[in-house]
Amino acid sequence: SNDVKEYENYFGLTLLDRRSDKRTDSKWLSKKQSHPTTVYILFSNLSPLVTLGGGIESSQQPEVKLCRLYHKDVEQCMKQTEEGTLIFLGVELQFHMNLLAAYNGRAVQEDEEDGLVAWFALSVDSASAEKFKQEHEDCYFLHPPMPALLQLPEKEAGVVAQARSVLAWHNRYRFCPTCGSATKIEEGGYKKTCLKEDCPSLQGVHNTSYPRVDPVVIMQVIHPDGNHCLLGRQKRFPPGMFTCLAGFVEPGETIEDAVRREVEEEAGVKVGHVQYVSCQPWPMPSSLMIGCLAVAVSTEIKVDKNEIEDARWFTREQVVEVLIKGNKRAFFVPPSQAIAHQLIKHWIGMNANL
Amino acid sequence: SNDVKEYENYFGLTLLDRRSDKRTDSKWLSKKQSHPTTVYILFSNLSPLVTLGGGIESSQQPEVKLCRLYHKDVEQCMKQTEEGTLIFLGVELQFHMNLLAAYNGRAVQEDEEDGLVAWFALSVDSASAEKFKQEHEDCYFLHPPMPALLQLPEKEAGVVAQARSVLAWHNRYRFCPTCGSATKIEEGGYKKTCLKEDCPSLQGVHNTSYPRVDPVVIMQVIHPDGNHCLLGRQKRFPPGMFTCLAGFVEPGETIEDAVRREVEEEAGVKVGHVQYVSCQPWPMPSSLMIGCLAVAVSTEIKVDKNEIEDARWFTREQVVEVLIKGNKRAFFVPPSQAIAHQLIKHWIGMNANL
Ligand SMILES: Nc1ncnc2c1ncn2[C@@H]1O[C@H](COP(=O)(O)O)[C@@H](O)[C@H]1O
Ligand SMILES: Nc1ncnc2c1ncn2[C@@H]1O[C@H](COP(=O)(O)O)[C@@H](O)[C@H]1O
Repeated sequence: SNDVKEYENYFGLTLLDRRSDKRTDSKWLSKKQSHPTTVYILFSNLSPLVTLGGGIESSQQPEVKLCRLYHKDVEQCMKQTEEGTLIFLGVELQFHMNLLAAYNGRAVQEDEEDGLVAWFALSVDSASAEKFKQEHEDCYFLHPPMPALLQLPEKEAGVVAQARSVLAWHNRYRFCPTCGSATKIEEGGYKKTCLKEDCPSLQGVHNTSYPRVDPVVIMQVIHPDGNHCLLGRQKRFPPGMFTCLAGFVEPGETIEDAVRREVEEEAGVKVGHVQYVSCQPWPMPSSLMIGCLAVAVSTEIKVDKNEIEDARWFTREQVVEVLIKGNKRAFFVPPSQAIAHQLIKHWIGMNANL
Repeated sequence: SNDVKEYENYFGLTLLDRRSDKRTDSKWLSKKQSHPTTVYILFSNLSPLVTLGGGIESSQQPEVKLCRLYHKDVEQCMKQTEEGTLIFLGVELQFHMNLLAAYNGRAVQEDEEDGLVAWFALSVDSASAEKFKQEHEDCYFLHPPMPALLQLPEKEAGVVAQARSVLAWHNRYRFCPTCGSATKIEEGGYKKTCLKEDCPSLQGVHNTSYPRVDPVVIMQVIHPDGNHCLLGRQKRFPPGMFTCLAGFVEPGETIEDAVRREVEEEAGVKVGHVQYVSCQPWPMPSSLMIGCLAVAVSTEIKVDKNEIEDARWFTREQVVEVLIKGNKRAFFVPPSQAIAHQLIKHWIGMNANL
């Protein structure tokens, strides 16, 4: 059976407009924090609080969904937790609102209700998390995150990707890397400022103040004959899983050169032409996966055992078998939510008679 | 006159193979450090030491070149400077060497001279820099870096981009951001490890240990009529300069959505289709500029004065005039070394009769 679902860009779709202009509007932010329509999503240890949808009556498999909480639910928790980190995620996309305002022929007034539904992510310490679970029996923290996060509905996955990446940054970057002092969080969670008055990081604009995003190349390497692709596996993968090669882009390197370097380093295969296909945010903790097709100009594989365990050329037929027909006997590839799956599928779609 | 030089990817081309496998080979690294053929390039305050090529006899304009130093030149300096940061950049690309080895039918032996010419970047403190300039009268540090770095020969620019980005990371990330402790530099300059024994950054792999690369989208926005493009300017630009809009990719965001968000934020214009064109490393301090074409689906411009000073639709003819004919009267665009220039040119090349 063909149960491959179409995920165009899991972790890349969202139901929010980030409204970065509001991050510096502290009056608006604080008004929204206690507004009754505002949605809070909770994190503990970088895992989101979720609940099961569908239910027992439904014949479908229960679906994991974010717990959407309100100010009244988190008020206590926010007061008690000093460690709590609050991130403004954006407002619900509301085409309806804009149309209404346009129809009325006027802009929304400064002091008036703007009708925007704001979302915040709140990270709580273990004690608060424990208390919360006791009070809300149907909720639990999705831990460990992988592959559990892949169970979220696509649009919620995008919200979680955004929130988790920013929270992971705060988690690992508590101190000023320039001088080692403590920092304070600003601009709705998107800025971090050193508290030492004469720290050089306070002169000019520096990336130490802004969340980190790590560009990673991930590539479907095509054999010169056009009918094989190169897939590899790391030791820590589940047995039988093979996927596209990948690696971090280095300073001073182009995407295309990073692809060539990584393929040669990991598998000893030389790549010529490289073509960008699509990208995917990957919140583990905060990568931007840049998906490419790469055309090999050599075929002999020399696996670097420090980086990967195995790499092989697979025929188009083998891949079609596994990808489309769901045959998991010989090997398997990551699920459709992963960009690797989409890249492999993209290649299969090329010049193929399916 | 048409004096637009073809820079396919300034800062993206290099004369080195990074050989990341050698970064953990401390024996090899230390042997190469004192090897007589090893090349050192010097930095002070993130500016490279350069000299003028061409000379007075030549009728050509003098060309700025990196000072290529040897172990004997930097030996003293390396001993004296505690602050000195040494980065292994790679080895000279030597097709010749490989051919020779293949011809001889044998691999290079472990202990034998491998013939590879290694490059290192050495960052020195102000005192050493001053002394160095006094000893080498024909050399100077290229400061401020912009636009001076754009005078370097293309392949040296790539080496400088790599070195400057890694050095800028060490400069701003001296302390462990997870716990605030001091750190030590490892793996030829590509890794940084916290010195506090029980720091959480030492458990598992974290990006705090690796150089930062910031993905930035830069986009040539095309009017729905296909015959205008949107260029903007920031207050700090030289008067008359307009260029492509750009902005940092945020956590949990795709390249395509970052393009749409930035264009709407900065100029109030809505974008539909986005297409990747090419990228460029930009060592100020360590960005990866991801160049795209973006097709606008609205045309009214509302400039966000916090972000940019002005944004306008320019006709294809206006752009051709400025770009190809070098007419700088009405406005001008960045030089050919900048990806913005290449993107604009790419668009002009599309469906145009030049
Ligand atoms: N990694 C980053 N480094 C520097 N600025 C950033 C970063 N991420 C976001 N920003 C924001 O982008 C602005 C600078 O953008 P630009 O003028 O395009 O260089 C800063 O004032 C910050 O608000
Ligand atoms: N930003 C980064 N975050 C984590 N690992 C990195 C980073 N940059 C380079 N690396 C290297 O990439 C390896 C992990 O790669 P991977 O197994 O693909 O996740 C680490 O062991 C590091 O050597």
